[in-house]
Amino acid sequence: MTTEKQQPDVIFVGNKPPMSYVLAIITAFSTGDIKDITLKARGQAITTAVDVAEIARSRFIKELKVTKIAIGTTEMPPREGENKARMVSTIEITLVK
Amino acid sequence: MTTEKQQPDVIFVGNKPPMSYVLAIITAFSTGDIKDITLKARGQAITTAVDVAEIARSRFIKELKVTKIAIGTTEMPPREGENKARMVSTIEITLVK
Repeated sequence: MTTEKQQPDVIFVGNKPPMSYVLAIITAFSTGDIKDITLKARGQAITTAVDVAEIARSRFIKELKVTKIAIGTTEMPPREGENKARMVSTIEITLVK
Repeated sequence: MTTEKQQPDVIFVGNKPPMSYVLAIITAFSTGDIKDITLKARGQAITTAVDVAEIARSRFIKELKVTKIAIGTTEMPPREGENKARMVSTIEITLVK
């Protein structure tokens, strides 16, 4: 193992099943020098991000702590055929081992 | 106006459109002695709760602040035809004016 930090400390949560992201968290914590990981999600994936944090904490990494949760709004480009930008909610959940 | 506290300071967010809950927040803050309101949601409504907080803050009550966000897990009774309890994620968002 090199001392170079290669693992990302941000995981973008999208529309895969929650367990894909839980696995990414477990892998990142077990292979790197990482002490904290931030989950980022927007729109419907916000619920998935909360599921991921809860599953990781309750079933896999008992010492995991949620140290910060922030919500916000971001502008997304209009959908095809529409001409108005959409405002989408976001969440960031920071997990520390 | 009496000094009795009649407005609820918890709003349960479900599957209505976000604006219904935004309106409930505006009404609660404008009619009562309430300084803070907690939005509670579970499952897919978590995304709606975040939308509600963001819409209320960015479009209607500029001085609104998110002072606390907590996530958790709760057990729900099994769906009809199933016999296993389901674990569902929850969120609580506290807003202070």
